Amino acid sequence: MNVTNLFGLIRTFELDSWVDSRGALVVAELAQFAPFDCRRLFIIHSVPSDATRGAHAHRECHQLLIAASGSVEVHIDDGLHQKVVVLDHPRIGLYLPPLTWAVEREFSADCALLVLASHPYDPADYIHDYDDFLATGSLPR
Amino acid sequence: MNVTNLFGLIRTFELDSWVDSRGALVVAELAQFAPFDCRRLFIIHSVPSDATRGAHAHRECHQLLIAASGSVEVHIDDGLHQKVVVLDHPRIGLYLPPLTWAVEREFSADCALLVLASHPYDPADYIHDYDDFLATGSLPR
Repeated sequence: MNVTNLFGLIRTFELDSWVDSRGALVVAELAQFAPFDCRRLFIIHSVPSDATRGAHAHRECHQLLIAASGSVEVHIDDGLHQKVVVLDHPRIGLYLPPLTWAVEREFSADCALLVLASHPYDPADYIHDYDDFLATGSLPR
Repeated sequence: MNVTNLFGLIRTFELDSWVDSRGALVVAELAQFAPFDCRRLFIIHSVPSDATRGAHAHRECHQLLIAASGSVEVHIDDGLHQKVVVLDHPRIGLYLPPLTWAVEREFSADCALLVLASHPYDPADYIHDYDDFLATGSLPR
């Protein structure tokens, strides 16, 4: 499994894949690339091509993103650095630690974006205002 | 979240889904429907329509299956009962306890089958012979 460190703790993974005449199997041993216990799963699908999702950060929640099908752009920002990561194959995983601002754009019609999260849903964990994010994100991490 | 008990501990879930102009978000709080900690994730994709996958049981490993895109038939068998479950929407989850024989067939071309598993990969956990499965499965559970 190849790991690419982007900035801070944000990193992408190229997961192991086994391909034969019966198709492809992508495998992720979560302890190797998700530094959290998975408590919540969500799947984002059927997103219009001109729609955006996300546009928030989490105070405590870690996330792992994989496009199980199709493709999507993830615009990530830790308050100091910005990058666009394209998820366009189930082999590519993107780990987002808490206090990462993320916006998803350019969903392909067939995109099914899988997100594994470290915490149950808690509205108080979300930071929806970018200036609030910058203020919160400037705290020591 | 609706739960349908099939037989034994095998059950399907209709997960919560939030649909608006930005697409659909399927959410699973794992503690509510996965009676295990998720240690491993795999995604099966690009499966030819005439191929089968699975055809084994696990001694200890619990699994949760979701077709994140497309559709697939899951033929399940606990040694006493058999059933075919069609996974054709990200809202449908299928929980398979240990000692369930499962075969996946009729993958649609766009199917991305997500499997969450309770254990890291261990070849000794797999039962690949159906008669061995019946012999093992007849033990008290």
